Amino acid sequence: MPDSAGPGHEALEPIFSPKSVAVVGATRVPGTVPFDIFNNILKDDFQGTIYPVSPSAKSIAGVKAYKYVLDIPDPVDLAVIVFPSSVVKLALEQCGQKGVKGLIIISAGFREVGGAGLQREEEILQICRKYGMRFIGPNCLGVINTDPNVHLNASFARRMPADGSIGFLSQSGALCTAVLDYAHAKHIGFSKFVSFGNKADISDIDLMMALKDDPATKVILMYLEEMTHGAAFVEAARRVIHEAGKPVLVLKSGRTSQGASAAASHTGSLAASDDVVDAALKQAGVIRCQTIEEMFNNAIALTYQPLPKGRRVAIITNAGGPGVLTTDAAIHEGLELAKFSDQTRDTFKRSLPVTANIKNPVDVIGDARADRYRVAMGAALEDANVDGALVILTPQSMTDIDTIADEVCNVAAAHDKPTYTSFMGETDVASGINILQRRDIPHYVLPESMCRAFARAHDFSVEKERRLTPPVRFADVDTAAAHAVLDAALAGGHSYLSPSDAMKVLEAYRLPVLRTGVARSARDAATIATQVGFPVAMKVESEDVVHKFDVGAVLLGIDSPAAATAAYDTIVANVKAHQPDARIDGVFIQQMAGKGEEVILGVKRDPAFGPVVMFGLGGIFVEIFKDVAFRIAPVPLEHVRMMMREVRAFPMLTGARGRPHRDVAALEDCLQRLSQLALDCPQIQELDINPLIVRDQGAGCAVADARILVVAP
Amino acid sequence: MPDSAGPGHEALEPIFSPKSVAVVGATRVPGTVPFDIFNNILKDDFQGTIYPVSPSAKSIAGVKAYKYVLDIPDPVDLAVIVFPSSVVKLALEQCGQKGVKGLIIISAGFREVGGAGLQREEEILQICRKYGMRFIGPNCLGVINTDPNVHLNASFARRMPADGSIGFLSQSGALCTAVLDYAHAKHIGFSKFVSFGNKADISDIDLMMALKDDPATKVILMYLEEMTHGAAFVEAARRVIHEAGKPVLVLKSGRTSQGASAAASHTGSLAASDDVVDAALKQAGVIRCQTIEEMFNNAIALTYQPLPKGRRVAIITNAGGPGVLTTDAAIHEGLELAKFSDQTRDTFKRSLPVTANIKNPVDVIGDARADRYRVAMGAALEDANVDGALVILTPQSMTDIDTIADEVCNVAAAHDKPTYTSFMGETDVASGINILQRRDIPHYVLPESMCRAFARAHDFSVEKERRLTPPVRFADVDTAAAHAVLDAALAGGHSYLSPSDAMKVLEAYRLPVLRTGVARSARDAATIATQVGFPVAMKVESEDVVHKFDVGAVLLGIDSPAAATAAYDTIVANVKAHQPDARIDGVFIQQMAGKGEEVILGVKRDPAFGPVVMFGLGGIFVEIFKDVAFRIAPVPLEHVRMMMREVRAFPMLTGARGRPHRDVAALEDCLQRLSQLALDCPQIQELDINPLIVRDQGAGCAVADARILVVAP
Repeated sequence: MPDSAGPGHEALEPIFSPKSVAVVGATRVPGTVPFDIFNNILKDDFQGTIYPVSPSAKSIAGVKAYKYVLDIPDPVDLAVIVFPSSVVKLALEQCGQKGVKGLIIISAGFREVGGAGLQREEEILQICRKYGMRFIGPNCLGVINTDPNVHLNASFARRMPADGSIGFLSQSGALCTAVLDYAHAKHIGFSKFVSFGNKADISDIDLMMALKDDPATKVILMYLEEMTHGAAFVEAARRVIHEAGKPVLVLKSGRTSQGASAAASHTGSLAASDDVVDAALKQAGVIRCQTIEEMFNNAIALTYQPLPKGRRVAIITNAGGPGVLTTDAAIHEGLELAKFSDQTRDTFKRSLPVTANIKNPVDVIGDARADRYRVAMGAALEDANVDGALVILTPQSMTDIDTIADEVCNVAAAHDKPTYTSFMGETDVASGINILQRRDIPHYVLPESMCRAFARAHDFSVEKERRLTPPVRFADVDTAAAHAVLDAALAGGHSYLSPSDAMKVLEAYRLPVLRTGVARSARDAATIATQVGFPVAMKVESEDVVHKFDVGAVLLGIDSPAAATAAYDTIVANVKAHQPDARIDGVFIQQMAGKGEEVILGVKRDPAFGPVVMFGLGGIFVEIFKDVAFRIAPVPLEHVRMMMREVRAFPMLTGARGRPHRDVAALEDCLQRLSQLALDCPQIQELDINPLIVRDQGAGCAVADARILVVAP
Repeated sequence: MPDSAGPGHEALEPIFSPKSVAVVGATRVPGTVPFDIFNNILKDDFQGTIYPVSPSAKSIAGVKAYKYVLDIPDPVDLAVIVFPSSVVKLALEQCGQKGVKGLIIISAGFREVGGAGLQREEEILQICRKYGMRFIGPNCLGVINTDPNVHLNASFARRMPADGSIGFLSQSGALCTAVLDYAHAKHIGFSKFVSFGNKADISDIDLMMALKDDPATKVILMYLEEMTHGAAFVEAARRVIHEAGKPVLVLKSGRTSQGASAAASHTGSLAASDDVVDAALKQAGVIRCQTIEEMFNNAIALTYQPLPKGRRVAIITNAGGPGVLTTDAAIHEGLELAKFSDQTRDTFKRSLPVTANIKNPVDVIGDARADRYRVAMGAALEDANVDGALVILTPQSMTDIDTIADEVCNVAAAHDKPTYTSFMGETDVASGINILQRRDIPHYVLPESMCRAFARAHDFSVEKERRLTPPVRFADVDTAAAHAVLDAALAGGHSYLSPSDAMKVLEAYRLPVLRTGVARSARDAATIATQVGFPVAMKVESEDVVHKFDVGAVLLGIDSPAAATAAYDTIVANVKAHQPDARIDGVFIQQMAGKGEEVILGVKRDPAFGPVVMFGLGGIFVEIFKDVAFRIAPVPLEHVRMMMREVRAFPMLTGARGRPHRDVAALEDCLQRLSQLALDCPQIQELDINPLIVRDQGAGCAVADARILVVAP
């Protein structure tokens, strides 16, 4: 577990920007990791000094080698450890004595192999703590910093990427090799590129926070296989997004249980439920991606172009069919086709052939050359009704592809709105795509990916401005009372609380449990019923009367003090008439749940994310449709509202198809109180309110039944 | 509308495989359509003779030109018309006189521009009919046949594709140019490649049927913007799939209403609802794709490799992370991770390093070279528990990519199970991918696309073997009775039938309407109640008694003849007690719907697909979740069952979560009868049975309410 503060930017400075690097365990054999790492640092123009450390070699690739780190005559900022795992300890001790500041431990054979590996990982952590050294790894591909003043490729990747504004952090080293190759072909550059492996010391969260403050990084991309400190991750990501305004994109694998188990056998860690991961990333404002390609499709949009201020796109195409496909995709992603102003339409009419379609999508027709694209794009981007341009090209026989690409770049550069492109095909359009990519115009093989990237960029522009109210802390709750009940249950060896104890816990947090009382007289009944709140149900309090309904000892819907007085007398009279000998202890009075829609609220404690709050509509919606939404506690009001609306059956509460409008405000209050209860009472492992009755607007909610599972925290 | 029979293969012969071609309207100006088409036929090695026809040129690209078609001294099989639309008519008359057999009309300016274009299209159709000439187009890119004995590129595409087994048919000419470029880069070949444009004569359906019988074509791909003859399309596609065993893949755009309206302004045709299109393609057994890339991803799997016999895949990877991503994707697509036999595990243990993961996904570890891939793939494909191999490669520093690619091809060729690959990255893996593509091993940029293609190929192997029972024709129906009621309603100027008339129509088709009768005496009551079927509801038949419930004139749940007799007397007595003067006409007896689950059945007549049958669960499921399924009538029993199971709430009928099992067999009967009713009665424009009560198993269904809208057919 990382220190709660995490290393500041300074702590990572010797790793990202060292003046001197020792490669500890380097060899002379090309094609091995120990040689490749040394050679990568050397040939990729590291701007500092590099020292190979090798038990046997005199020199490596022409550079004088040292037998021990301690033999190096100058100070060493960073040591890259490539020894087999069995001898890493010794190397670290020497690094510590040498005063090395940061480490990258490439070596595998630690936590990921289980057994003795776990212990080895603990030992290297202790040694580094002892000397105050921080490290990345073990079991990683290494670290790349493209800053021209540093230019460090301390990795065994096949290639050093171009410099750019994307920071990439990956739990999988092998995936990095595919990503670097993919990015190279698409002219995508990086600021920092880190394979963090087992993250025994410096974590993914530490690295994300470092990139938050890194002026070279504009967008942060992460590949994760598990999220061990989920709640901290959410908090950190929110800060990156809202304090630094930088988008965070996450590809989290292990979505399915089979995938999670493959990940576990690969990383040695346990997985949180994917529903919870999904909710947490949403709550953090992270853009979750499902594939590497989708992650980069979104990243180039966010990195290269201004954020769209709205969802209204202009589609410009030289082909009808692809225009239709793009329209479908845009609508599917929640975008809108911009409605052009009269002025724009006039420009189109004046400048495009009569056969052109000047509605949106704008079809400049198959024989269009660069001039038509320039006119159409320019007029569209000038139009106040347009938030961005999506430009399609198909390689027809007279299409001057490269000139069009240049013109698209020129027009895009002259406007403060985003332009994305899809030049469809592959070989014929390759040089045109190359022009676009080199001039930072996002290009997509598929119009569908282009529309998705536009939608995500717009989502981010909304998320960036979202100001969350701090989660409410209700002052009217009685935490001590709740703890007393929960602790007593734990002390008594219970796992599930008794129904009345569960109600007491909820009542302590002012959740709307049905209030009750026992009246000993008719006058009493009026007072208690008033306290409990009308309408009430009344039934005889008597162990002797078994079939209370049958003897007229239960009355429902009593709605005034006078009626309560009368009901008391009626009940007593009915009992006496049927069972003269029955002992009557009084009349039990309970507030009635009333009519309303049944919903389910829940809490589940997740090992990585802490208490998770659940919401769904009652019965079949949860059982058959799995129509539920989650958030991590504490849940700010905005996210309470978002999670309610993620549930597809939510319109049942807001008047859909002539249904009554229910008390959504009271429901919001319940969810917020539940969130606070879950945070304040770590004894609660699981909690279900099923159902909560949501009455009509203004009439509140009622807990009809609840279940609480406790585990000693 | 095409002739119902459509042109046989012979009719298309002069178009696909002409011995002589005239290009009518050719010019000497490179970069224009009339020149490019002529030049494409010439330079792409057409094996017959080509004659340019030009009003002014003496020769084109060195080939002697003729002023008129009639001047050509030899017979002409195929004329490609590239004149402007205004002079096409004259050219066609000459072709007719010349005895030309087939035509490709490239020229635009017909139906797609509306107005005068519609008339021009009708005129050219008449001329061709007169001379017995068949044609493709107008408004198209042309036709390509890669058969080495023909080698015809009668199109203005930039390039002639390689030969292969894919037949491609497209409504959009421009999209073809992108597809040809895309396919070229991926070494994908075609048998026939047709841009069919406005399909004024030869339709997409005709072309599909021609490819059914084309020995060079193994897989048929279609891009469609509308489906004017939907029912005929479904029938034709089924024949291609089941008679010829060839997969049909369709990319149908205009999924959203905005897309459909863009398509309409582009093709001039009206769109069917996308739900209906989706259902129809499913019913035909067509593989519907959402993007061009997805279509080719599936096509290469179906063309290059054996069909998977099951869903159990072995994943072989040199990288853990991508193994996890692939597992997620496989499970998401409904595949299973194969469980290896002991023997396979032994082979892995013997031949792979100890650090390798020999569970599925099999991780041969980052330093794997070709030998490990060979061993792992070979053992996996030998295993009887494995239906196919998914091979992942990431370009790590010691990965011998090309050798591995060769080895993968060798091992795949030695087994009768499918192997698909994903070599992740782009530049470094390019030559390896090239090897795979040239040796017909499907390669995917994303593991996710690979898994989807495997799932679709498996779906097709199931679909190919699916034997549908011919739709039932119930003999116990009274079509004449139904027609009488419907025609009377039409004659009376009604649009909606009265409730009792609607019930009469349903009753004529033996749908379970609630039976009724009126008893005039207590003895009568027993007889009628027995005929109607117990339990029954009974109420007084009297215009004088308004509040029948209040006076005790309605009795429910009467379940025997004796009880019916008694009930008659009770009702009469109660009415007399409360309203001595009321006139009593008897007692109305109705079968009770009984308890059950409410479902909705519907019919809607679609202009392209004819009657469409709908099924959903009652109330909110349809209203809020849009949880409904469609099929085109007649619906075979297998599709009745499939459509019921597509509805997510269907488990509510089959005992989910302790609910009762309902009479699903009776429901199937209702859907089949409804399908027949819709086909037999073209007067029915819309029909809703809402709700149909599905009682417990064995107890049947009951129509509780129904609505029928008629329109003169």
